[in-house]
Amino acid sequence: MNLPNSVTVKEVGPRDGLQNEKQFIQTEDKIDWINMLSETGLSYIEITSFVNPKWIPQLADAVQVAKSIKRKKDITYAALVPNERGLQAALEVNIDEVAVFMSASETHNRKNINKSISETYIVLKPVIEQALSAGKSVRGYISTVFGCPYEGEISIDAVLSVSDQLFSLGIQELSLGDTIGVANPKQVEEVLTKVLDRFPREKIAMHFHNTRGTALANVLVSLNLGITKFDSSLGGLGGCPYAKGASGNLATDDLHYMLDQMGIHTGIDQEKLIQAAIFIEEKLGKPLPSHTMQTKRSLCNS
Amino acid sequence: MNLPNSVTVKEVGPRDGLQNEKQFIQTEDKIDWINMLSETGLSYIEITSFVNPKWIPQLADAVQVAKSIKRKKDITYAALVPNERGLQAALEVNIDEVAVFMSASETHNRKNINKSISETYIVLKPVIEQALSAGKSVRGYISTVFGCPYEGEISIDAVLSVSDQLFSLGIQELSLGDTIGVANPKQVEEVLTKVLDRFPREKIAMHFHNTRGTALANVLVSLNLGITKFDSSLGGLGGCPYAKGASGNLATDDLHYMLDQMGIHTGIDQEKLIQAAIFIEEKLGKPLPSHTMQTKRSLCNS
Repeated sequence: MNLPNSVTVKEVGPRDGLQNEKQFIQTEDKIDWINMLSETGLSYIEITSFVNPKWIPQLADAVQVAKSIKRKKDITYAALVPNERGLQAALEVNIDEVAVFMSASETHNRKNINKSISETYIVLKPVIEQALSAGKSVRGYISTVFGCPYEGEISIDAVLSVSDQLFSLGIQELSLGDTIGVANPKQVEEVLTKVLDRFPREKIAMHFHNTRGTALANVLVSLNLGITKFDSSLGGLGGCPYAKGASGNLATDDLHYMLDQMGIHTGIDQEKLIQAAIFIEEKLGKPLPSHTMQTKRSLCNS
Repeated sequence: MNLPNSVTVKEVGPRDGLQNEKQFIQTEDKIDWINMLSETGLSYIEITSFVNPKWIPQLADAVQVAKSIKRKKDITYAALVPNERGLQAALEVNIDEVAVFMSASETHNRKNINKSISETYIVLKPVIEQALSAGKSVRGYISTVFGCPYEGEISIDAVLSVSDQLFSLGIQELSLGDTIGVANPKQVEEVLTKVLDRFPREKIAMHFHNTRGTALANVLVSLNLGITKFDSSLGGLGGCPYAKGASGNLATDDLHYMLDQMGIHTGIDQEKLIQAAIFIEEKLGKPLPSHTMQTKRSLCNS
């Protein structure tokens, strides 16, 4: 194996994790949690989403959260933005990085954002342009890269096509998502090899879900191909397997455990990560599904 | 990656899985379950353990189980045997393969079998000799290969030393266990590289636990080094994270999902595997912890 010396872990729990949680987490608790995350050594936190609260009531307090957290200089505070209206709100609260999103699957894109893939480019073009003009960095997410709940297999060409368009619109980093957690390491190698033939590895991040237990194996093969950026959600938040609509986010604490044990530098303190996980677990009132948290509870009870 | 074309999955659920379950599973249910496992395409099933029932009451029905299951010709039915007395029982019921076990950690070995490592060789020598004389194949397990709950790190030399001794006593296959689920892929590569310098890869099996989510990543690096035999427990049985003494066995269904998706032949039918998992889950009366089973429940409920 040819492993990198260091990796950037991009914490998406406050957005991708919380957005699937039905129970509203109090705004103050979100703020406290993000402040705790800022003390763990993480250098990137996606704190919220400026979508219409009608679609994600959990993140209706995006402005308040973004305004109220204590920002540390060396941390990038990012937010998801679906359109120009969302961007205006994000810029008003001076978010550091804007993340736009779409799907490699035509059907999933329609179901998720009610637009065709080509219509989505038209919506995202001014968002990306204006964000860049405002001096913000812009990240793009592509979902269903490794499989779609409606279409099944997704061709690598479809992924490359959307990637091309997003980069040509100006995004600086691309996060490839295994939205339904079906990717296997061989497939990751195949897709990533073609992606890295076309784009520099520094611009590619991987966003795995652990729905079928393969996330860290997929991380491993990605590391071996030179990828150094991974998205994850603390405690596997948003991925509780017993909840409806389980998404199975890769847990930051599990990802960090493996990276740390392999001597890969992340700058993150695992103990502080666990403290932050315990905090949000208590607010949620239900166990977080990460292996680290399950093992912690098990060891405490035995 | 350089992946093998086919892999042998060694099902250890009826022994390694059940032995951690406090609630006694009725003998008939064990028999029915093993018969279901025999129909899944598995070629190897460790069905019980001939240990003193005082230590593992769950497996007190070893003789009855071994006598009553329907054996298929192309399946190896194995059992754990700690000593000559256990071997006699195993031979009386004509078990196909005998598995002996010890630890790479002096302290763990003492706590687990109440003997020093060198005393254990003396106990195992006649067991292995007599099993071989009776025409049985013999497998050896080494536990705590990647870390010990009492001693912490275990040196590769300690692992090689126990491996040497067991092979010189006559075992034909060696299963290296990550008993407490702490192994990381880099460590697996380091240990396995040295092990494979000394022993042929056909004689080595890996036995990972998923306690910290790394089992399939550890499988992946092992596959890449040419290992084609893996132990696992259906549904992650014996590894329920909410139970005391959670062991976190790698789930056969999760292992098989990844292998199958990568096009690696196992001969196993995933659907039949799931049916067998549902059967034992109902007998246990609590959810099995594998990702496959969690995802199945989640999809059914949503």
